Amino acid sequence: MAHDAVEVIGAKRDRGELSDSQIDWVVAAYTRGDVADEQMSALAMAILLNGMTRREIGRWTAAMIASGERMDFSSLSRPTADKHSTGGVGDKITLPLAPLVAACGVAVPQLSGRGLGHTGGTLDKLESVPGWRAALSNDEMLAQLESVGAVICAAGDGLAPADKKLYALRDVTGTVPAIPLIASSIMSKKIAEGTGSLVLDVKVGTGAFMRTVEDARELAATMVALGTDAGVRTVALLTDMSTPLGLTAGNAVEVAESVEVLAGGGPADVVELTLALAREMLAGAGRDDVDPADRLADGSAMDAWRAMISAQGGDPAAELPTARESHVVSAPTSGVLTRLDAMAVGLAAWRLGAGRARKEDPVQAGAGVVWHARPGDDVREGQPLFTLLSDDSERFDRALEALDGGYDVGDGTSYTPTDLVIDRIG
Amino acid sequence: MAHDAVEVIGAKRDRGELSDSQIDWVVAAYTRGDVADEQMSALAMAILLNGMTRREIGRWTAAMIASGERMDFSSLSRPTADKHSTGGVGDKITLPLAPLVAACGVAVPQLSGRGLGHTGGTLDKLESVPGWRAALSNDEMLAQLESVGAVICAAGDGLAPADKKLYALRDVTGTVPAIPLIASSIMSKKIAEGTGSLVLDVKVGTGAFMRTVEDARELAATMVALGTDAGVRTVALLTDMSTPLGLTAGNAVEVAESVEVLAGGGPADVVELTLALAREMLAGAGRDDVDPADRLADGSAMDAWRAMISAQGGDPAAELPTARESHVVSAPTSGVLTRLDAMAVGLAAWRLGAGRARKEDPVQAGAGVVWHARPGDDVREGQPLFTLLSDDSERFDRALEALDGGYDVGDGTSYTPTDLVIDRIG
Repeated sequence: MAHDAVEVIGAKRDRGELSDSQIDWVVAAYTRGDVADEQMSALAMAILLNGMTRREIGRWTAAMIASGERMDFSSLSRPTADKHSTGGVGDKITLPLAPLVAACGVAVPQLSGRGLGHTGGTLDKLESVPGWRAALSNDEMLAQLESVGAVICAAGDGLAPADKKLYALRDVTGTVPAIPLIASSIMSKKIAEGTGSLVLDVKVGTGAFMRTVEDARELAATMVALGTDAGVRTVALLTDMSTPLGLTAGNAVEVAESVEVLAGGGPADVVELTLALAREMLAGAGRDDVDPADRLADGSAMDAWRAMISAQGGDPAAELPTARESHVVSAPTSGVLTRLDAMAVGLAAWRLGAGRARKEDPVQAGAGVVWHARPGDDVREGQPLFTLLSDDSERFDRALEALDGGYDVGDGTSYTPTDLVIDRIG
Repeated sequence: MAHDAVEVIGAKRDRGELSDSQIDWVVAAYTRGDVADEQMSALAMAILLNGMTRREIGRWTAAMIASGERMDFSSLSRPTADKHSTGGVGDKITLPLAPLVAACGVAVPQLSGRGLGHTGGTLDKLESVPGWRAALSNDEMLAQLESVGAVICAAGDGLAPADKKLYALRDVTGTVPAIPLIASSIMSKKIAEGTGSLVLDVKVGTGAFMRTVEDARELAATMVALGTDAGVRTVALLTDMSTPLGLTAGNAVEVAESVEVLAGGGPADVVELTLALAREMLAGAGRDDVDPADRLADGSAMDAWRAMISAQGGDPAAELPTARESHVVSAPTSGVLTRLDAMAVGLAAWRLGAGRARKEDPVQAGAGVVWHARPGDDVREGQPLFTLLSDDSERFDRALEALDGGYDVGDGTSYTPTDLVIDRIG
């Protein structure tokens, strides 16, 4: 049925519920350019402020999937499971997680993105491995899933093109933080990708898009319902992102930390979250008989990592690039690190060159922030607290500004440890 | 101060109050093209849904005025007064009003527009007078104001260019019905035009943009405050637009009805509203010693009309164009006309060719609707109730569809006359 952009915008502006026919029409017409950017941005703002019902979000997601191709992994000899994180600071979990789950006998087809703003991108991190390439054809992806069991690569242009166009528009029109649009953007790609099961890591806290547990819970519940309705076994963990994950934020530094985890070491929080997500993925794929901790301990997860990197042209034994310059921030006083703010660390890493302001900007492989204590740790006056890494020493000042006020050293009486996994939905 | 579009959009999206600096920046940057259409439409939707304070609307209006030139009538030997109607069906009041007020010694610099949708445009109506032209230079306008006292012409491109650009954008993005944007659009042009006093005719009812008295009152109060703050003596009348004005809707037919009023006749409601608005304009210009009814009676208003038409190349004695085809709708039964819906009549006139769907469309000078009874009048079964006029007989069917259900003939017990002037604000 033919509709009109002003009619569809007007219906949502006036707090109406869009019909299936209106949603199908507006998404298809926007993809082919018959609905203009200025019309879609007005509709996006109306959706942000007036909301959408579950039915509308489901239909919107289906319309975005229908705008492109769907992948099919049913020919694989093993079940598939994927993970998506809504994005956080120091969130390198995909790197150890994909090979770990593959080592447990479940195939992981991980289509990842690049970073924009203060949260890093998985592809940017992996590109610090010499030789590694992000672009794979669908056939290459399928072959690697069969042989290695894990792929982390860029999504092809054919997958949900409506989402690509809308995502770029939302980025410049102040319409990013709309739960219906975030949920349908994530889930349209994951459903089109064809995974059998999916675990969502919904971040909440100062370093995440969702600042409150309430918002995160709504987003998680919306996405779980979308996945379930589309036949994908879907669960969500709500996890803390008021503190950055691990001890590093950047590109090469996060790869190094991930390799430590795969070698059986690494920061406790990164190990905890990797195992928690792996267990959910295995359960979703019907393989909860396997304990992923065993596969970390016996070296098979590390083997899968090496195979995965090699299959995409990377050299897992090569030395990782390092930044040309570094700057150490010392503890101002002795006491307990009572707070380390994820947004402050993410912003500092971004300003050091680990992230990009515009999507065409390059990133520095060696740039980032390493912190030498986690909340709850004792620190001594003058002890190194942060090491800032960048190829350009003139970037240190603005990174220091970002860190300023982003951490507290106190007597420890005001410190209460927070749970990493806040809730499970699904 | 430099701002960023996403920051300004985000502030309004999150129900914040925009600073003077943010408003000045975003209006200027949009006018020069640094803020894109898709960013401004998202901001317009956020303004529509989250509102603006009086301070924000005042600053937004000032920023739109500052985007272009300001006119100056201070060199004239007489005071100036203007009128603006928010638009209705059969609203030809500007045509008799401008020469009538000029005949009372007050200059009327009326910058008018063309019709879009179901409400007619004053310039479209006057262009049915053979030879008449809408475009005047500022110098021609000033000279005619001095010699004749009344000018009705098109606004030049130099006046509030930000408003022209934003108005066209709102039309295609579902963001027309935002009171802050309607008020600032109207008032930026009227303030830049340089009139000393202003009377606003805020229409309310089915044929108006404002459907409720509450909305109309808010729009009126907002505009009166904007005008007063800018040093323009401003009052507003809330007037009924559930019933169309007079007995005609179209172009040439409305000119003919206006000439009847100037000749001392014409429908009672058109005469009543013309005199009410004239009295307000004269009071605003400090000339409430003059009774405009006298100037209708003594023929001086008609003289001013003839001079005004002639000065712009028109022949006031020429015959007006007529439509090639007509179609009569008879009363279905005998009784009292208890309801005549303004929107139904406006839509019918539009579909007959009196209005345009897109701004580049031509209009038919002779097209329109004439009705032969007004609410409260007795009608007899079979008596002509409407005459539809068009150059294309194939337009009659869709016009009849528009009229269907738009009027009731009953026994008169359910009929209560409504007040034409509902309220006065200022």
